[in-house]
Amino acid sequence: MHNYTMLVDFYELTMGAGYFNCGKSSQIAYFDMFFRSVPDGGGFAIAAGLEQVIEYIESLRFSAEDIAFLRSKKIFSEEFLAYLATFKFTGDIWAISEGTPVFPGEPILTVRAPAIEAQFIETYILLTLNHQSLVATKANRIVRSAAGRPVIEFGARRAQGPSAAVLGARAAYIGGCAATACAAAEQLYGVPAVGTMAHSWVQMFDTEAEAFDTYCKTYAAAPGGVTLLVDTYNVLKSGVPNAIAAFKAHGITNGAIRLDSGDITYLSKKCRVMLDDAGLHETRIVVSNSLDEYIIRDILIQGARVDAFGVGERLIVSKSDPVFGGVYKLVALEDEEGRIVPKIKVSENIGKITTPHFKKVWRLFCRDNGKALADLLTLHDEVVDDTQPLEIFDPVHTWKRKMLTNFRAQQLLEPIFIDGKRVYPKLTTQQIRTYCLQSVETLWDEVKRLESPHTYYVDLSQKLWDVKDKMLNNSGR
Amino acid sequence: MHNYTMLVDFYELTMGAGYFNCGKSSQIAYFDMFFRSVPDGGGFAIAAGLEQVIEYIESLRFSAEDIAFLRSKKIFSEEFLAYLATFKFTGDIWAISEGTPVFPGEPILTVRAPAIEAQFIETYILLTLNHQSLVATKANRIVRSAAGRPVIEFGARRAQGPSAAVLGARAAYIGGCAATACAAAEQLYGVPAVGTMAHSWVQMFDTEAEAFDTYCKTYAAAPGGVTLLVDTYNVLKSGVPNAIAAFKAHGITNGAIRLDSGDITYLSKKCRVMLDDAGLHETRIVVSNSLDEYIIRDILIQGARVDAFGVGERLIVSKSDPVFGGVYKLVALEDEEGRIVPKIKVSENIGKITTPHFKKVWRLFCRDNGKALADLLTLHDEVVDDTQPLEIFDPVHTWKRKMLTNFRAQQLLEPIFIDGKRVYPKLTTQQIRTYCLQSVETLWDEVKRLESPHTYYVDLSQKLWDVKDKMLNNSGR
Repeated sequence: MHNYTMLVDFYELTMGAGYFNCGKSSQIAYFDMFFRSVPDGGGFAIAAGLEQVIEYIESLRFSAEDIAFLRSKKIFSEEFLAYLATFKFTGDIWAISEGTPVFPGEPILTVRAPAIEAQFIETYILLTLNHQSLVATKANRIVRSAAGRPVIEFGARRAQGPSAAVLGARAAYIGGCAATACAAAEQLYGVPAVGTMAHSWVQMFDTEAEAFDTYCKTYAAAPGGVTLLVDTYNVLKSGVPNAIAAFKAHGITNGAIRLDSGDITYLSKKCRVMLDDAGLHETRIVVSNSLDEYIIRDILIQGARVDAFGVGERLIVSKSDPVFGGVYKLVALEDEEGRIVPKIKVSENIGKITTPHFKKVWRLFCRDNGKALADLLTLHDEVVDDTQPLEIFDPVHTWKRKMLTNFRAQQLLEPIFIDGKRVYPKLTTQQIRTYCLQSVETLWDEVKRLESPHTYYVDLSQKLWDVKDKMLNNSGR
Repeated sequence: MHNYTMLVDFYELTMGAGYFNCGKSSQIAYFDMFFRSVPDGGGFAIAAGLEQVIEYIESLRFSAEDIAFLRSKKIFSEEFLAYLATFKFTGDIWAISEGTPVFPGEPILTVRAPAIEAQFIETYILLTLNHQSLVATKANRIVRSAAGRPVIEFGARRAQGPSAAVLGARAAYIGGCAATACAAAEQLYGVPAVGTMAHSWVQMFDTEAEAFDTYCKTYAAAPGGVTLLVDTYNVLKSGVPNAIAAFKAHGITNGAIRLDSGDITYLSKKCRVMLDDAGLHETRIVVSNSLDEYIIRDILIQGARVDAFGVGERLIVSKSDPVFGGVYKLVALEDEEGRIVPKIKVSENIGKITTPHFKKVWRLFCRDNGKALADLLTLHDEVVDDTQPLEIFDPVHTWKRKMLTNFRAQQLLEPIFIDGKRVYPKLTTQQIRTYCLQSVETLWDEVKRLESPHTYYVDLSQKLWDVKDKMLNNSGR
């Protein structure tokens, strides 16, 4: 694709043409992108994908071929097609920075734009933020389970299409992975790419010893060291002895062995002893083979001697929960006088009710220890004064109240586009990753548990709560 | 990306440089792509993605920027980088046509090429065939559960990245979906794109009645008819009455209503009565909301009055089993005299043992009823004579034998590339879809069950079984 303009649900176009025809296309609308639950039952998600949303919006453009294709559908007027030929985004966008821990129900991204534009960008915003937030969130879970050991993303061959491989590697890195197997992810996004050999390398030679010797000869001086895959035939009887011989013959002390099958806990302990007995105390043990956060936690509890993990399919598609259910909902309109009129979507399913209005998101940190205490959604024109005590309350069980003092309030929604112009800086993937890992540190351990985490508070200001409550009460009549 | 050449696991490059350095790069190697188990415990998978593999191989080319990037890694020699600058695929590829039902353990694709080339294309072949076969397989399950009612793919916003949306729509169509929500999938691959309105359309107007009226005014004459989303406020109290009024006011008899929440079985029955009472017998009921093959089967059993299904996240990522575990394994080498030397990968995990050698795949059909009886893997130079009786046998429980008579044998692996040139025709996605649906009809109902299907036979010829058995016996010594 020359660009992603046509990667759009067809109904964005039919609605667009409808707004165009009935004179509503320039009415200013506000949409929030938010999600309703954290994948895998986790306590928080990691926002990711914003840079690709920005690139998409900056490159929005219908080509002559696109217009011709749409004309062939025989449902759009020439006036509308002429409008599309000059279509671009002219509105405002605010979003929470990539790498930030985020919680259900709060806007990750807010759009203020003419209705036709705000509607059109829905599909790409959702697919991009949903995909990368999914993988970044999963990666962060896996990285936390590895307890300081590097986790390398190995998933390209099981990714759901080419962009899932490359953008998935980017998101995994943001979430804390140390490297990727995918060369394009380094070239495009600066994610360090690593890799050494497959079983086929070993099978190409008459013996495993010759395969290892040849590899060490080629790469003895490689900056990343040499990793030998030791499970093609028999790990303990041939793989490790052959690897030790090859490392010694070539004077390699910063090498590694990789286990890709079998009982990793048992084998890693045996391998560690064999390497140590050979004096190769610095030689690392890398393991892979259908790992995820649960298996990594288990094998570490069982005393596996592992220095790094390679994680493939269960990371790149977030196998145990492969959908990040972000949605994009209308929250307000501007009337002819420019007044903001809140909109709400009521549903019989309580969890699907939206929080109306143009909003701000504040994160409240304890000034003593820097920990995040709660997020607070307010109306767009409210200011949280963190020099004064603040009472927050549960928006459903409103009798559950807490008085905060000695806190610092930080706004999370940053301006990204103003009047269609990018105003947000371009960060390196490395910068986003560093920010992510620092931000996760501001969460209490109870929120970071893999299972049954503490539910972080996402509360509404009294004014916002009043608006929502009034609209809910009116809707029931 | 200008092309996908750099979308490669880094180890394909380190191995390639190793082969290059030690003089093995031009040794002819044979690799098979195959899978080990059908997602969701199904009885068969649908092969898909071949056309994108072909496009990839035809466009393989390292740009000057790619070479410069690889040089910056400081592990590749200038001689190897000069070789990469002229790199292209010069070998042969055979593959099973897209849309064919395929089974565990049989080659979906076989590569014969100089080792360095055959190794290099592994990553992209796997990710493409794995992704599209996953979605086509899932789509076919969902389409079968819908028992003749159209299934529309709605998943772009939950797809894992942009290409997963567009190529996923392609694969879903191959597997039997009738249409997609994604405009680019029609433009690029001819998958019919459809779509009408979101809840936000309804919320943009002062009343639901006005929203429906405006939409019908705009699209009364649209070829695909008008679908009104009736669950923004209250399906039975406002949505359907307003839809009926709008259809009648605009003389629309080929319209549809869509339910996207609530109890679909209950609501669809009530809606059907209301539409019929209004004389709108031709007005269809389309439902969506977290559907998959299990839920569709259940609501149809319960008597839901549904004319078409929209299926999103559970299809586009194959949520219940989001990985198609295809692998790419060395199966033979050619020695200096051009003799084919079979290779096997033995594993302590019996399921991971490969079937060695350059092979053919035959599908055996009953001449009486056209049903597929078994697949047979043979050595590359064997011919199955379907004018003579043939005894097939279970490759593990070899006493389980069956004599076939009155059968027709068809080779499944088609030549795709010969000497680096494409020899396979380019089919339209519509042609592939038609072929897929016809091919699925050749399977017995017992193989097509959603749960606990009959295991289809994938047997080895006696000669191939002997080769594998001898190699396994030798490996144990």
